[in-house]
Amino acid sequence: MGSQNDAPIMQGAVDVLKDLGISVEMTVASAHRSPARVVRLIDEAGKRGVAVFIIGAGAAAHLAGVVAAHVTKPVIGVPIDSSALKGLDALLSTVQMPPGVPVATMSIGKPGATNAGVLAAQILALGDKGIAARLEKYKADLADKVEKAARDLQGT
Amino acid sequence: MGSQNDAPIMQGAVDVLKDLGISVEMTVASAHRSPARVVRLIDEAGKRGVAVFIIGAGAAAHLAGVVAAHVTKPVIGVPIDSSALKGLDALLSTVQMPPGVPVATMSIGKPGATNAGVLAAQILALGDKGIAARLEKYKADLADKVEKAARDLQGT
Amino acid sequence: MGSQNDAPIMQGAVDVLKDLGISVEMTVASAHRSPARVVRLIDEAGKRGVAVFIIGAGAAAHLAGVVAAHVTKPVIGVPIDSSALKGLDALLSTVQMPPGVPVATMSIGKPGATNAGVLAAQILALGDKGIAARLEKYKADLADKVEKAARDLQGT
Amino acid sequence: MGSQNDAPIMQGAVDVLKDLGISVEMTVASAHRSPARVVRLIDEAGKRGVAVFIIGAGAAAHLAGVVAAHVTKPVIGVPIDSSALKGLDALLSTVQMPPGVPVATMSIGKPGATNAGVLAAQILALGDKGIAARLEKYKADLADKVEKAARDLQGT
Amino acid sequence: MGSQNDAPIMQGAVDVLKDLGISVEMTVASAHRSPARVVRLIDEAGKRGVAVFIIGAGAAAHLAGVVAAHVTKPVIGVPIDSSALKGLDALLSTVQMPPGVPVATMSIGKPGATNAGVLAAQILALGDKGIAARLEKYKADLADKVEKAARDLQGT
Amino acid sequence: MGSQNDAPIMQGAVDVLKDLGISVEMTVASAHRSPARVVRLIDEAGKRGVAVFIIGAGAAAHLAGVVAAHVTKPVIGVPIDSSALKGLDALLSTVQMPPGVPVATMSIGKPGATNAGVLAAQILALGDKGIAARLEKYKADLADKVEKAARDLQGT
Amino acid sequence: MGSQNDAPIMQGAVDVLKDLGISVEMTVASAHRSPARVVRLIDEAGKRGVAVFIIGAGAAAHLAGVVAAHVTKPVIGVPIDSSALKGLDALLSTVQMPPGVPVATMSIGKPGATNAGVLAAQILALGDKGIAARLEKYKADLADKVEKAARDLQGT
Amino acid sequence: MGSQNDAPIMQGAVDVLKDLGISVEMTVASAHRSPARVVRLIDEAGKRGVAVFIIGAGAAAHLAGVVAAHVTKPVIGVPIDSSALKGLDALLSTVQMPPGVPVATMSIGKPGATNAGVLAAQILALGDKGIAARLEKYKADLADKVEKAARDLQGT
Repeated sequence: MGSQNDAPIMQGAVDVLKDLGISVEMTVASAHRSPARVVRLIDEAGKRGVAVFIIGAGAAAHLAGVVAAHVTKPVIGVPIDSSALKGLDALLSTVQMPPGVPVATMSIGKPGATNAGVLAAQILALGDKGIAARLEKYKADLADKVEKAARDLQGT
Repeated sequence: MGSQNDAPIMQGAVDVLKDLGISVEMTVASAHRSPARVVRLIDEAGKRGVAVFIIGAGAAAHLAGVVAAHVTKPVIGVPIDSSALKGLDALLSTVQMPPGVPVATMSIGKPGATNAGVLAAQILALGDKGIAARLEKYKADLADKVEKAARDLQGT
Repeated sequence: MGSQNDAPIMQGAVDVLKDLGISVEMTVASAHRSPARVVRLIDEAGKRGVAVFIIGAGAAAHLAGVVAAHVTKPVIGVPIDSSALKGLDALLSTVQMPPGVPVATMSIGKPGATNAGVLAAQILALGDKGIAARLEKYKADLADKVEKAARDLQGT
Repeated sequence: MGSQNDAPIMQGAVDVLKDLGISVEMTVASAHRSPARVVRLIDEAGKRGVAVFIIGAGAAAHLAGVVAAHVTKPVIGVPIDSSALKGLDALLSTVQMPPGVPVATMSIGKPGATNAGVLAAQILALGDKGIAARLEKYKADLADKVEKAARDLQGT
Repeated sequence: MGSQNDAPIMQGAVDVLKDLGISVEMTVASAHRSPARVVRLIDEAGKRGVAVFIIGAGAAAHLAGVVAAHVTKPVIGVPIDSSALKGLDALLSTVQMPPGVPVATMSIGKPGATNAGVLAAQILALGDKGIAARLEKYKADLADKVEKAARDLQGT
Repeated sequence: MGSQNDAPIMQGAVDVLKDLGISVEMTVASAHRSPARVVRLIDEAGKRGVAVFIIGAGAAAHLAGVVAAHVTKPVIGVPIDSSALKGLDALLSTVQMPPGVPVATMSIGKPGATNAGVLAAQILALGDKGIAARLEKYKADLADKVEKAARDLQGT
Repeated sequence: MGSQNDAPIMQGAVDVLKDLGISVEMTVASAHRSPARVVRLIDEAGKRGVAVFIIGAGAAAHLAGVVAAHVTKPVIGVPIDSSALKGLDALLSTVQMPPGVPVATMSIGKPGATNAGVLAAQILALGDKGIAARLEKYKADLADKVEKAARDLQGT
Repeated sequence: MGSQNDAPIMQGAVDVLKDLGISVEMTVASAHRSPARVVRLIDEAGKRGVAVFIIGAGAAAHLAGVVAAHVTKPVIGVPIDSSALKGLDALLSTVQMPPGVPVATMSIGKPGATNAGVLAAQILALGDKGIAARLEKYKADLADKVEKAARDLQGT
């Protein structure tokens, strides 16, 4: 993520990934303030065989695009609402990538961080039956929670 | 995709996938006009082992979200500029998904369709070294084309 | 409605309908997290002769559109302000439906929930003189309240 | 509708209503340029038993709200893209009604006009089995057209 | 103004007008909830020789346009930030009037209410030298306050 | 107006004013490219007793605000759609004036230019019964044209 | 800056400039409320050899454009979020300048004020090796802070 | 610039710089498609003593930010209208930079390219009296052209 201020938001992705039994590592690297660090981390990630990148950034959110420029692995971007424009700037900066260099853009903020974790799991599940099974259960749980919420609401 | 009018746009995804040696199938199914067809196609896709879904839709672009609600495979959404609001409606309808149900949203229109193909290839490349190699070449070609464009421009 | 968090908003519709002597039932069903539940509720509603559907949802608010895809009864949509984009996403996702599948879209949030109740009553009043009479009184009361507010203001 | 320039758009509502066997009348009355005419038409409509109002207007689209202020019948609003702001102004002017006075807002422009006709039919169908049956067929035809479009596309 | 909730905002116009020695009257009348009251007040205002109308309204802010439809006196509109969309809806509903029926639109909220009072005074000053002189002083005071603020700031 | 390119738009104000028998003069002066000219014209206008200023400008439309900063006469602003942002920039630059310095903002483009002429006439009519009478006729003609348009439409 | 209320924001520019050893002076002058003061300050600045102007303003933020109209020195504009529209109005008013009269526009609010200081230093550094060296250190510090934040985060 | 398609727009900057007697070089380098080329060009530019960078890019316009991340020279960004969102995406991606890393953002499209050239000249003029003199003449010519346009318009 682009700033340590984004950590409470991006923790949502970490939580989902851990729940789904997927190893994850979180760090800070700014495309604008520490470009060399970004490239170094990408290089190291390549050597360690990182499969998917999840990037959270706000305002002129370039970090996901910068990572996508360097790798052929899937890059997932989470626009963060950290400016006066309420994340619209981060959304457009993240999603409007030119042809050939996709960023898989999630919704703004916390829901997007959670979804970044889920999408990463869906990608990895294509080659890992354990993750696939846990994702099926995760999806069933989502539906169960809605059923329970409905019972709670109507019981009131 | 949600309408046959979207075919010229979505062909961009087909072209990339074919170039990268990935089998692809394109059809039309509207979340609003033919919801039963959508569910039937999702069921069939599940049986045939479809790995990734690419969905293009405009206006109140619900199709990607509807597909994502039913599957645990990655779903890639391409917002299409087919209304008075120039794709802003399709972008927000596609990207602002609730926690638990991600849609990997691409840029609006033709660039997004191309990128949907590239992202699908990136996902599949995690388990297929042939695709991974072709993606590396695709990425190198992108850079080469920029070099060539620069030479052409400066040669003028 | 798409989430139990929307209940305080959507209660506005329930209140108006009860005041106008119309039976109403409120539940939760997410188009994205519990699509099977949505279809089951629509089927049951069809059997019980539900006349009008009122749907509240936020962010990528697909629920009203999904219901409208399945029924030929009037579907009223209330965009809810529950994301960083302040309901603009929910508004566009709800209102920009393709030809053939309308959602009667109300204003964002609490005023929209109230209006969903009023519109449902207006629809039912076409076939029920009692509701029609109560609606006339409701409308007269609105005007009376403005007169009273004016007196209060000018009395100060 | 608010201007004769809106006639080609609003014809979409007329066409659907005629196809569904519902009598319809189209006229022009501007909330701003001819307010007395608007009130006179509303009065006459009340006497003739008009059941549903469909209003198309662009820019500061007040006409639907003005009609809704005077009647307790359902009022359907179609925002028309006739200004520099591409219908965003008409959409917000039409949909953001205060509590107590709903306008059932459709999508911007031609799709919205078609949907206004369909929604009016859905409302009238609650008390008319013939219309209800024709609407069921209309809905089935929508799905059939998608199937046919899919065959055409894949046949190519 | 369209709602008693707008009174604290619109008081800004009253204050300026009183300061400039201009008689002013404030009341509530909703274009949507009390249309008959609006027309009655306009008629009375015509008989009493009201010279300028100042209208504050939020959301689908139709009141200024409705008044402008009935009078040939200047109508000044103040868009009020009272909805989820932060006054953008009220601004577009107030300003985007069709040709022939102007509303002199001010900035959103409190600054706009103050300015409505100033513009009304500027209009009346064309025929009243006393108001013209007080306006000149008001303008000089604005500049003096800036000078004083600068001294305060730099003195710190 | 800020640029000679705006002349075809602003001619709409000239036409209305001439039709209503009001003398008018049109010129070009850019707040940004010729600030000294702007101040000189304002000074000359003050000496000649110009009663109302109508300003058309696009993009970062500062001209109306700059004129309003110098005079205590009414200043009417017409935002012009001459940039990529379709006049939204000009609208916000014109309307969002700080307290004490109003610009009476019209709708974007040609309708706004016409309305600027009408508003200027409404202002002058407060002190000129001839203009007041012609404005009454202008307003009646607007309504007549709507009646005629309705007859034409329904005669078809 | 246009208002004393902007001082806490614009202090960010002062702080950076002082840290980089550049003399700076801050004052208030409103383009709309004190235009004569603005021109007087510009004249004085010209005589004192001011090299770069930094202007902060909100709403219809004309001040940077007005200064740019008078000088051939670089003018840096900071849009301030001080209206209902959250700085979008100030951004568009500041950035959308016509050809020939640039304003170097920064991001909205506090980050923009800081960046205005940095950009001014970058400009002055072209002719001052001391500033250039301090800027290199400032840039290295930015990267160091990211490294430290990453260690802090991962140490947790 | 990020794409050879931007050349006709960015030529505006080249033209101004040549007119003002400043040496300029134009090339293409995409932050996303050719990141290595971008860094190589930045390194070479540093060695050759390039004083100011002008960057044009559209959509998710990251190029200016990427360059600004690497240099302490002034970076000027021109948002280009090359996507469905009409340059709003490019504007926000270019301008909303985080504290410490400014991009001097110009207006969208052709006017912005011209202004980038002018701003670069203003920056260089601080250390070059010849450029300063030519800029004064350029500014005087702008005003003269307005005077001429006014004469042409009024002569008609």
